[in-house]
Amino acid sequence: MKATIYISLKNGVLDPQGKAIENALGQLGFDGVDSVRQGKMIELELTDTDANQARGQLQEMCEKLLANTVIENYDIRLTDAE
Amino acid sequence: MKATIYISLKNGVLDPQGKAIENALGQLGFDGVDSVRQGKMIELELTDTDANQARGQLQEMCEKLLANTVIENYDIRLTDAE
Repeated sequence: MKATIYISLKNGVLDPQGKAIENALGQLGFDGVDSVRQGKMIELELTDTDANQARGQLQEMCEKLLANTVIENYDIRLTDAE
Repeated sequence: MKATIYISLKNGVLDPQGKAIENALGQLGFDGVDSVRQGKMIELELTDTDANQARGQLQEMCEKLLANTVIENYDIRLTDAE
């Protein structure tokens, strides 16, 4: 089973990396970019075949290691491409 | 218009960051993780309202700044939450 975890900064948390991208885009002449936020994407290949079990395990992974839940949100999506 | 760009390493390109996550998950006792790949996610808020035009501009942004097309793939998704 494949899973993808999207980790993004919570609203209100300063995102200097996103700001840097926004400025760089402006300097390259791209107008019309209002705001940029950068996040992470983690793709995992799991041996688990039970979606519920996998989701629980992924949630635990996010809480323990992958995301800093003080400032980050995570979103788990499963794709059953077994 | 909102857009999200997903940038991931091409197949075959070594991903030490993903490997580090995989090892760390193993050490935390998470079995059943076969492979981990880390990518980037960039969320943009655009003033553009025309989807085709926005897509063209985003593609140019990826080629020029956001992605290293030698080793990275990018995937553009538009969400019309104007």
